[in-house]
Amino acid sequence: MTTIDPPPTSLPTPEPATGTGQDLVLAIDVGGTDLKSALADPAGALIDIRRTATPASSGVPGESIVERSAALLAEYRGAWPTKNIAAIGLIAPGLVDEVNGVGIYSANLGWRDFPFADRLRRATGLPVSYAHDVGAAGDAEMRFGAARGLGDVVVMIVGTGIAGAVFCDGKRVLGGGYAGELGHAQVPGGLDCTCGLRGCLETIGSAGAIARRYTELSGQAVPGAREVFAAAAAGDPVGRRVIDDAITALAFSIAQLVAILGTEAVVIGGGLTQAGDALLDPLRLQVKQNLSFHRHPVLLAAQMGQDAGLIGAALRARDLLDAP
Amino acid sequence: MTTIDPPPTSLPTPEPATGTGQDLVLAIDVGGTDLKSALADPAGALIDIRRTATPASSGVPGESIVERSAALLAEYRGAWPTKNIAAIGLIAPGLVDEVNGVGIYSANLGWRDFPFADRLRRATGLPVSYAHDVGAAGDAEMRFGAARGLGDVVVMIVGTGIAGAVFCDGKRVLGGGYAGELGHAQVPGGLDCTCGLRGCLETIGSAGAIARRYTELSGQAVPGAREVFAAAAAGDPVGRRVIDDAITALAFSIAQLVAILGTEAVVIGGGLTQAGDALLDPLRLQVKQNLSFHRHPVLLAAQMGQDAGLIGAALRARDLLDAP
Repeated sequence: MTTIDPPPTSLPTPEPATGTGQDLVLAIDVGGTDLKSALADPAGALIDIRRTATPASSGVPGESIVERSAALLAEYRGAWPTKNIAAIGLIAPGLVDEVNGVGIYSANLGWRDFPFADRLRRATGLPVSYAHDVGAAGDAEMRFGAARGLGDVVVMIVGTGIAGAVFCDGKRVLGGGYAGELGHAQVPGGLDCTCGLRGCLETIGSAGAIARRYTELSGQAVPGAREVFAAAAAGDPVGRRVIDDAITALAFSIAQLVAILGTEAVVIGGGLTQAGDALLDPLRLQVKQNLSFHRHPVLLAAQMGQDAGLIGAALRARDLLDAP
Repeated sequence: MTTIDPPPTSLPTPEPATGTGQDLVLAIDVGGTDLKSALADPAGALIDIRRTATPASSGVPGESIVERSAALLAEYRGAWPTKNIAAIGLIAPGLVDEVNGVGIYSANLGWRDFPFADRLRRATGLPVSYAHDVGAAGDAEMRFGAARGLGDVVVMIVGTGIAGAVFCDGKRVLGGGYAGELGHAQVPGGLDCTCGLRGCLETIGSAGAIARRYTELSGQAVPGAREVFAAAAAGDPVGRRVIDDAITALAFSIAQLVAILGTEAVVIGGGLTQAGDALLDPLRLQVKQNLSFHRHPVLLAAQMGQDAGLIGAALRARDLLDAP
């Protein structure tokens, strides 16, 4: 059993629509390769985290996810026969219509306009929420993590790519499913991007880009950004340049957020946060230099870790039980 | 009497807190040089628009605005003795705390943390709203103008400088008073800015910058951006370059908005819209080139004209009467 350690606050105990206040919800995080799942109790603690391969699509993309999710529900019910599972929170990448529970588009997973919430609701008879994976991770940081108590926040997940959850006045911005594509906003010095544009932030500012650029510029292959930070700290000029370019690009984009939205806190999660203060200290300095009379945001490391998405998925499912 | 022509919708007829459904509200737009005012009827039509010089500050900055506003109320009551004026909507530039009705800061007008709503409420006995001038103009475009019926919208006012009103899921983003500073977000090719930064959008993309840069680069003084558009249309290479640079900068910033927020419509107001399709057509093309899988926003000319701010101020005042 994995608990949030320490849970800084707890989920509101619902007046549940079905079952009792001790109901569990099933959280499912659909990734490109893995499908993670867990039960969550009313306090937000995750129970029995499981990881399986994301099922290959057979026929209509999305349908195999629904089938696997329904099978998972049966497995968890078998494993926890005394517990009532009252709702399901599903999250996935791509373009997501959270209002209608529809997967608008996923390049990696292949669906277009697939009605996940409706299909899984019909397959299981339970209330189902469907949300964006990074958005859900952001929800978890807002409710339990680095951004709790704040209203104007951007949670940036910097890993292979870069995506974000944008909160204004405490509410996550949806933008019809298109909000939060921070990795595909252009920056000076950005490179050719797989999306077809030139200059996207994630071509230079992501953990993936840091490793790739170092390998290209030094001729020495590195497994990840961590090794590039280590090289830079040891005085390697190529490592220093690659890290500096990434920080300059991230600071540029953060200043855009602040000017447009009056962002008061930027929470940085994902693989790049392993660099800790070697990332955050120079980034804070550059963000400050990019601002004048603007609001000056605090830069914080994400706190919810690898399971932030699952915790957010559970929050969404719990909201269905809280709804009047 | 100026009416909204045609009013595409009307203000909701309130169950007024005081008086009757025929009550008027007083709208006051405090500018750097002029103070505009009008009465507004329940349908949103402006009546008896007046313009006076913004009173010079004597002592505490902001206090003279309160005194002048209270005097205006008396003047309008004298001019319209059979009408009941039930609330006041005040708008001003600078950093504005709309929630508490406080003028956080105005560089031009000199106040810091001045409690406009509270002071004017005590001076007049009426409910008073206090809002940002560009935000109020955006509210008017959302309720009556180019953006009616839309939810994810940025209204950009491009004049001497550039400022914006940012709407997400139908709600204006406040950002603690700091949102919407689109003119002070950096762009490639941006120049030294009076705010202390280098690269701000308004140093190259504003109507003011277009006129200034043309004058500098050509050695020929022009009164405004309109003449530079005319020069570019007539084949003047300096005019063409200055216009192209402005459009490139504006398109860069619009693409940032779209990537971050999933903006579905950008409404462009202010002096630069006099250029019409000579601005909007190439801007649409460049915005499209800056986007790939993103949402593709429509670019629209503002419809509410010079009095958009007053209309928005009246909306805010009317909201006070609607409030339960």
